[in-house]
Amino acid sequence: MTQAGTDGATAAGSPTYEDVVLAHARVAGQAHRTPVVTSRMTDEELGASFFFKCENLQRMGAFKFRGAFNALSRFSAEQRRAGVVAYSSGNHAQAVALAARVLGIPATIVMPLDAPAAKLAATKGYGAEVVPYDRYAQDREEIGRELARTRGLTLVPPYDHPDVMAGQGTAAKELFEEVGELDVLFVPLGGGGLLSGSLLSAGALSPECAVYGVEPEAGDDGRRSLREGRIVHIEAPRTIADGAQTQHLGEHTFPVIRERVTDVATATDAELVACMRLFASRMKMVVEPTGCLGFAAARARAAELRGKRVGVIVSGGNVDLERYAELLAG
Amino acid sequence: MTQAGTDGATAAGSPTYEDVVLAHARVAGQAHRTPVVTSRMTDEELGASFFFKCENLQRMGAFKFRGAFNALSRFSAEQRRAGVVAYSSGNHAQAVALAARVLGIPATIVMPLDAPAAKLAATKGYGAEVVPYDRYAQDREEIGRELARTRGLTLVPPYDHPDVMAGQGTAAKELFEEVGELDVLFVPLGGGGLLSGSLLSAGALSPECAVYGVEPEAGDDGRRSLREGRIVHIEAPRTIADGAQTQHLGEHTFPVIRERVTDVATATDAELVACMRLFASRMKMVVEPTGCLGFAAARARAAELRGKRVGVIVSGGNVDLERYAELLAG
Repeated sequence: MTQAGTDGATAAGSPTYEDVVLAHARVAGQAHRTPVVTSRMTDEELGASFFFKCENLQRMGAFKFRGAFNALSRFSAEQRRAGVVAYSSGNHAQAVALAARVLGIPATIVMPLDAPAAKLAATKGYGAEVVPYDRYAQDREEIGRELARTRGLTLVPPYDHPDVMAGQGTAAKELFEEVGELDVLFVPLGGGGLLSGSLLSAGALSPECAVYGVEPEAGDDGRRSLREGRIVHIEAPRTIADGAQTQHLGEHTFPVIRERVTDVATATDAELVACMRLFASRMKMVVEPTGCLGFAAARARAAELRGKRVGVIVSGGNVDLERYAELLAG
Repeated sequence: MTQAGTDGATAAGSPTYEDVVLAHARVAGQAHRTPVVTSRMTDEELGASFFFKCENLQRMGAFKFRGAFNALSRFSAEQRRAGVVAYSSGNHAQAVALAARVLGIPATIVMPLDAPAAKLAATKGYGAEVVPYDRYAQDREEIGRELARTRGLTLVPPYDHPDVMAGQGTAAKELFEEVGELDVLFVPLGGGGLLSGSLLSAGALSPECAVYGVEPEAGDDGRRSLREGRIVHIEAPRTIADGAQTQHLGEHTFPVIRERVTDVATATDAELVACMRLFASRMKMVVEPTGCLGFAAARARAAELRGKRVGVIVSGGNVDLERYAELLAG
């Protein structure tokens, strides 16, 4: 089995801000430089200046394209010919499929039999081969490793890889470059790819900025890992934030988070739905539940934020429309 | 009774592109320069290059702020002291209320007793005095005129005024300035303020561009007016496009439209809902039914648009969330 970037120096160690800068040069022109949205009504309500980095408006609807594209860009000629494999029922599947199409690399995506039809169609629409599996009877990681071994494919994991982390850090880099230094930054936290990358960018571009990871209250393994100083594993949490239903941080992401993060906050599903409604009514944006984590945590601690400059990474907007309608209707 | 701008040259005659340019200088820094959004998926599906001018992301959620702010900016010192009056159950009410607040002008808005609570709250939130009326028993225009006469207020009509038309034309001006000339432009059509202003900008900045007004199929008074060469009046149409439930074009808007428009197209409510869903799923944007008129008409004539550069004015995003959820759920 091959892992993405095992031929390079990056994969061996912990990524640095230099890797984010290199990643940014690779994704430029392919990933959108997404807009930073402000909301006068929100600023007035909370007495602070908010800057929303809108990765829901990224290609394929989430920040995941940045990390996938960066990782695939670093493939050797041999890796490119053989192809890439990924397992995911969510945004990472589409991100790898799209990045592979752009780079002309064959892609194989391991997806559950009961994945939403829209996500299956999108992944196939990008030209990827979809290998279905039964999520109740089969182990997707095992299937992925088997495909990598037998077909010579390179596996790109959803978050626990230096190239993926460096790619995800380009969103926060763009945010700081556009609006300058911030007092506080809130970042959704699942496996830690987006958070660790954001921490690298904050450290270089806004070193005084407090950076919070935000995870679903039902799945607070990140907070517990920070408290206990080791990677805590949990059962798959029950939450509407499907992009943050990870069961543990990664071996590459945890050290960066442990060293640099200010703290890990949590948000309840009810708080996420309230933010989803605010994004729709005030900013006219569709944001998926996971993408609401940062704003929800900020609202919960508004008293501490008065007068401050607050960044929020809005991680994605991929939500089934029927489901979205249900949540909006409340 | 005073009409906005009766002291100026503009109000007397038909507005020109020069008036749009002057309006743009007035609204700059107050109205957002809204983004132009593209969608690769839409371009691939329809075989054309689409440019969506996103007035749903305008202040107070619709293009109406442009025209209202331009009209109020031209008030004399005396008019400013006395205040402005407007009648509307929709976006024009909020636009006048917000523009008045920004300019420090007292605002009185005549609104139906059964107006949506959110719109009432928003209008009051901008500091306007709301005068309620019974839409089944009272004539709002009569109430507005009476208030104007007895209190010395200046009435700003929702579309049929040169300053309003010139202000609305600034959206298309920004679109052409950002993306260059277009082959076709689709513009929502109610009373004709947005369409007439857009025609002035297109005439100056993209003279070969075909410009279509798009109205609800249930209320095709614009198309009939064009065919018959006179302003046709109709009963209030039954359509979800509440921003285009006007019963007739205006005395100022009709001549501009008659002289310059390529044609008037229509869209059904079902077509509007389909576009609302596409805006949400592909572009992660909340668009109100009226704001979908342009895209709906473009989709209906996709065969004629192949290979062309197509502009679409997305006029607004103010839709009650419960209603929006119902429409998305289908």
